[in-house]
Amino acid sequence: MPTTTQPDSAAPEPVSDSVPGFWAVIPAGGAGTRLWPLSRAATPKFLLDLTGSGRSLLQATLDRLAPLADDRFVVVTGAVHRDRVLAQLPELKPAAVVGEPSPRDSMAAIGLAAAMLERRDAEAVMGSFAADHVITDPDAFRDCVRRAVDAARQDWLVTIGIEPTHPATGFGYIDVGEELSGLAGVHHARRFVEKPGAATAASYVAEGYRWNAGMFVVRPTVLLDLLAANHPELAERLRAIAAGEADLAETWPALTKIAVDHAVAEPAADAGRVAVVPGLFGWDDVGDFASLAGLHPAETAGGGPAVLGDASLVRSVDSTGFVVPAGGRTVAVIGLDDVVVVDTGDALLVTTRERAQDVKKIVEALKAEGSPLT
Amino acid sequence: MPTTTQPDSAAPEPVSDSVPGFWAVIPAGGAGTRLWPLSRAATPKFLLDLTGSGRSLLQATLDRLAPLADDRFVVVTGAVHRDRVLAQLPELKPAAVVGEPSPRDSMAAIGLAAAMLERRDAEAVMGSFAADHVITDPDAFRDCVRRAVDAARQDWLVTIGIEPTHPATGFGYIDVGEELSGLAGVHHARRFVEKPGAATAASYVAEGYRWNAGMFVVRPTVLLDLLAANHPELAERLRAIAAGEADLAETWPALTKIAVDHAVAEPAADAGRVAVVPGLFGWDDVGDFASLAGLHPAETAGGGPAVLGDASLVRSVDSTGFVVPAGGRTVAVIGLDDVVVVDTGDALLVTTRERAQDVKKIVEALKAEGSPLT
Repeated sequence: MPTTTQPDSAAPEPVSDSVPGFWAVIPAGGAGTRLWPLSRAATPKFLLDLTGSGRSLLQATLDRLAPLADDRFVVVTGAVHRDRVLAQLPELKPAAVVGEPSPRDSMAAIGLAAAMLERRDAEAVMGSFAADHVITDPDAFRDCVRRAVDAARQDWLVTIGIEPTHPATGFGYIDVGEELSGLAGVHHARRFVEKPGAATAASYVAEGYRWNAGMFVVRPTVLLDLLAANHPELAERLRAIAAGEADLAETWPALTKIAVDHAVAEPAADAGRVAVVPGLFGWDDVGDFASLAGLHPAETAGGGPAVLGDASLVRSVDSTGFVVPAGGRTVAVIGLDDVVVVDTGDALLVTTRERAQDVKKIVEALKAEGSPLT
Repeated sequence: MPTTTQPDSAAPEPVSDSVPGFWAVIPAGGAGTRLWPLSRAATPKFLLDLTGSGRSLLQATLDRLAPLADDRFVVVTGAVHRDRVLAQLPELKPAAVVGEPSPRDSMAAIGLAAAMLERRDAEAVMGSFAADHVITDPDAFRDCVRRAVDAARQDWLVTIGIEPTHPATGFGYIDVGEELSGLAGVHHARRFVEKPGAATAASYVAEGYRWNAGMFVVRPTVLLDLLAANHPELAERLRAIAAGEADLAETWPALTKIAVDHAVAEPAADAGRVAVVPGLFGWDDVGDFASLAGLHPAETAGGGPAVLGDASLVRSVDSTGFVVPAGGRTVAVIGLDDVVVVDTGDALLVTTRERAQDVKKIVEALKAEGSPLT
């Protein structure tokens, strides 16, 4: 009589998918102004659970990268957010979370991580991924990162180019060239282009350009040497901080405020040093409530608007759209299509998906008045 | 040299406008379901300040009638609301506020007041006016009531017929006949008609019918005798309660539940006993948020929606409509026209003026679940 019991030794050994030497760098910045009143200066977007998964965008970013990086993470965030980041990521050692004394744009944040890793691990390949994006197919994402790491080991600056779902005017684009020899799925990146107008965006999409989501995979030394070519003092200062030769708090305010795209990616592309892995994995930067609503069905099975949070708090009649009952109160919506209602303890937003961008006008007005609500 | 100082005796004596023997009866009932979440079972519409005047609708009703009635008031309300009514009307003696043990419709409430006044003041003329209506021209209203009192002293049952502003389907109408001899501005009321369909309403307005706002001015004995003609036992029981021969709490639940219109006004009109004073004084029954919004400009001077309450709490971009920030929180509205947003401590309503009637669907659903929010 056959038995269903197998000896332990016959169980398949779990094969680790992690990529040796791969370090995930997570710049966690940006308030997410257009997600007010959910996001605030003190509670930025990356600390929020915007998908209803029970994990913040930051936590989900870590979850997505851990199969590749194991515990090899560097999170760079504002010093004021460091405690909350550590509280959300108890699996990280405190040293893995670097607090920036003040915002100095993405080059300083990513460059500091690169300088630290350069000293720590000569074989390191770093991948930098924002803490506040959503990816619905993490397996496909990780496949892209693996290909990118292979190319980065050959000293390319590698980016991941997102397949556009529409001719967006809110993102920069990447002009994708020929596949590189010996690197399946990795292409030459001809150039980066800035956020286009609507007509140009349509032509970019037609020509197969990809969205630039600010994802870079690169050897730390390659990144810093590319930086040194155009901004030698910035590269030097970052390396001095990492070496303990310069004090972070003293040096930081003097660093050049520049985005990694302008400081490194664009000139490197002009020099033929950039590769791109085209990817399709359900990426969204969750830039505003229209974008966030797009992650949820516009109408639920029951016929009402989609809900982020406790759906039992939402009552509706003849309505579609998106409701966030984060204030714990009952929200009733009647006779409105594509409405966006965001209820919090001290502020309420009512708008439409179409006008979701204009939330920033409210936030700007509140900031100008010194309101405590921003 | 002339002096501007006049002797005190030359100052005109203030002439009291009050009407001897006139008693104002105020039935204070009705939850105002379609004004949820402002109105609740425990805080019905008449206890709310819906105009931003600083006075509740009940208080404003008293203010409007005091120049005619001095301190001659009888308020009939649910026993559960009696304490709050007394707290809002400190000028009334406790005996002036009668608590109904349970809702028995308008005939029982008004009939009880009539029975009490019949015993108290043989010369009394009572005028019954709901506690939850808004009147923007109280002088014109009081002129109508004076004319009505004159007719009531001649034993007419007198109603006030509101000049329609539109062919409403939500009110009953009064067919206005010839002016009565010797009673300027007082007409024969041919008949009362029920709430009509849209086409009938338009023909009523074209033919000069007036809205029936449930305002009756009448000698108490006339009212009770008219009641006795069709509902002798109801008239008898009300008179017995007033005489102390029957216990209110014991007798009340057995009283016939009927509206004053059906019990008295319609049969009296058929018998040629009803007069009507046509009136135009900015009347509104504030039946729903569309009606309430209509009392405020749809767009403020600053360009945003009208606000009932603290306007500094409301921020808007490209929006019109009506916002009630009663929850004390900031309310931001972007890109919505004719929107209605009502924010309270535990519930929030978002709808449009056009759909304001459907608030009752939400309240019904909440009631069906036994929600504490109704």
